[in-house]
Amino acid sequence: MKQEIRRGKLYGIGVGPGDPELVTIKALRCMKESDILILPSEPREDCHAYRIVRQIYPEIEQKKTISIPFPMIKEKEKLEEAHEKIFHRIRALLAEGNTLAFLTIGDPTVYSTYGYIHRKVTAEGGMAEIISGVPSFCAVAAALGISLGDGGEEIHVIPASYDVAETLNWRGTKIYMKSGKHLAELKWLLSSVDAEVYAVSNCGMENQKIYRDAVSIDADSSYFTVVVVKEKE
Amino acid sequence: MKQEIRRGKLYGIGVGPGDPELVTIKALRCMKESDILILPSEPREDCHAYRIVRQIYPEIEQKKTISIPFPMIKEKEKLEEAHEKIFHRIRALLAEGNTLAFLTIGDPTVYSTYGYIHRKVTAEGGMAEIISGVPSFCAVAAALGISLGDGGEEIHVIPASYDVAETLNWRGTKIYMKSGKHLAELKWLLSSVDAEVYAVSNCGMENQKIYRDAVSIDADSSYFTVVVVKEKE
Repeated sequence: MKQEIRRGKLYGIGVGPGDPELVTIKALRCMKESDILILPSEPREDCHAYRIVRQIYPEIEQKKTISIPFPMIKEKEKLEEAHEKIFHRIRALLAEGNTLAFLTIGDPTVYSTYGYIHRKVTAEGGMAEIISGVPSFCAVAAALGISLGDGGEEIHVIPASYDVAETLNWRGTKIYMKSGKHLAELKWLLSSVDAEVYAVSNCGMENQKIYRDAVSIDADSSYFTVVVVKEKE
Repeated sequence: MKQEIRRGKLYGIGVGPGDPELVTIKALRCMKESDILILPSEPREDCHAYRIVRQIYPEIEQKKTISIPFPMIKEKEKLEEAHEKIFHRIRALLAEGNTLAFLTIGDPTVYSTYGYIHRKVTAEGGMAEIISGVPSFCAVAAALGISLGDGGEEIHVIPASYDVAETLNWRGTKIYMKSGKHLAELKWLLSSVDAEVYAVSNCGMENQKIYRDAVSIDADSSYFTVVVVKEKE
C-alpha cells in the first residue's frame, strides 16, 4: 500500500477568499492538471470553493468530482475517525494513479481540513503539495482599506468559536475568524472595548457587507464574517 | 488639488511571496491596466516584486517604471517625512491622470509601506484599491507541509526586529517575520524553547532553504527568513 499511494498526486489548493480573480495562476494550473476534484461539500454547487473557481474557469464543470463532506465537530475522537475515513477514500484514489485537486477556501494552512489529509498522505510516503491561496483576512483588510500590521505591530488570528474574553486586551491587531454562532457574543464583548472595530461578511462575494464599528455588526450575518480589531492610533 | 487626484487611480498590488505562479489573476490584470509601475527599489532589476512578476509577465519590461525607494528607518518623524515626500510624488502622477501599480511582495496589508500611501491618497478623496496577495507565511507553511492553525489554535504574526522575549510563551503558532539582523538572537532564544521550530529562507525562490529546528537555522541567511514556532503535539 505504501508504494501504491505514490502512483497518484494530491494538490491541496487554496482558491482564495471569494473574489474569483484572487485565484492564483498556480491554483489554476494545478486544477487543470488534475483528474479529479475533491470537494468538502455535496452537491458541488453548494461548495463555496467550487463556486469561486467556476466563475474564472468554467471548464471545471467537465471535471470528475468527488464530494467528501467534512463533519463540523469539535470532539477529538469523532473528528479523527472522520478524518481517517476520508483519508482512506483519498488513499484509494491515489493508489489508482489519480492526480487529485482538494479545493479549500482561502489558504490550505489556515484552519483548513486539508491539513489533516496532507499529513496522513505524506506520512505514508505519498506525494502531496500545498498550493497557497490568499487568506480571507487579507481580502477583508483590502475591502476595509486598512493595514493589518505596520512597523512593530503584532497580528493575532483568533478562532472566535472558542473562548475569546482574554484576547480582548492583547496589543496589536486581532482578527477573529470562524465566529459562527458566537458572533453575537463577540459583538457584545467588543462593543465595550476602546479600539477600532471592523467586520466584513461574505468578503468578495455579491452579498459583501462592511461594518466600521461593533454596534452595527449584524450578528446573524454569516459564518463568513471576519472581525478585525485595531488599536486606536 | 483634491479633485485633480481623482483623475488617476492607484492599485496597491501584492505579488505574493516569491513563486511567480502565486501571482493572482487580478494582480496580473491590474498591472496590465496600469500606465506606470511604482517600485520601492532602484534600479528596478533589484526590486524583488518586479523580479517575481517579470518571470510570469515578461511584457512588464515595456512598462514605464518610477522607483521610489522607501527608507528602512524606525524613527517616527523621519519616517513620516519620507512618506510625505513619496505621497507628493504619487499625488502628482495621479493628478496627471495616470493609473499606477504600486508593487509589494506578499500582501499589501501585512507590513507593507503601501499602507501609508493608501491612507494618504484616500484621505484626499483619491481612488486607491488594494489587490490582495499571498502573504509569505502561507507559502512558508506550504513549503514546510505544516498547518499554521487547526481548530482553536491562535496564529500570532510577530515582527522579529522588535522585542520578542515575552512572545515565546504565547500559546498557538508564532510566525516571526522581518527578523533581519535579529535572526541570530531569535535563533538563540528559540534553541531553549520546548516547541517545534521551523524556518524558511527565500521561500519560493531558487535559493530557498528549509530548516526544521532552531539550531540549524543559518543566522546570516537572509532578510527573507520566516520562522514558525508551533506547540508540540
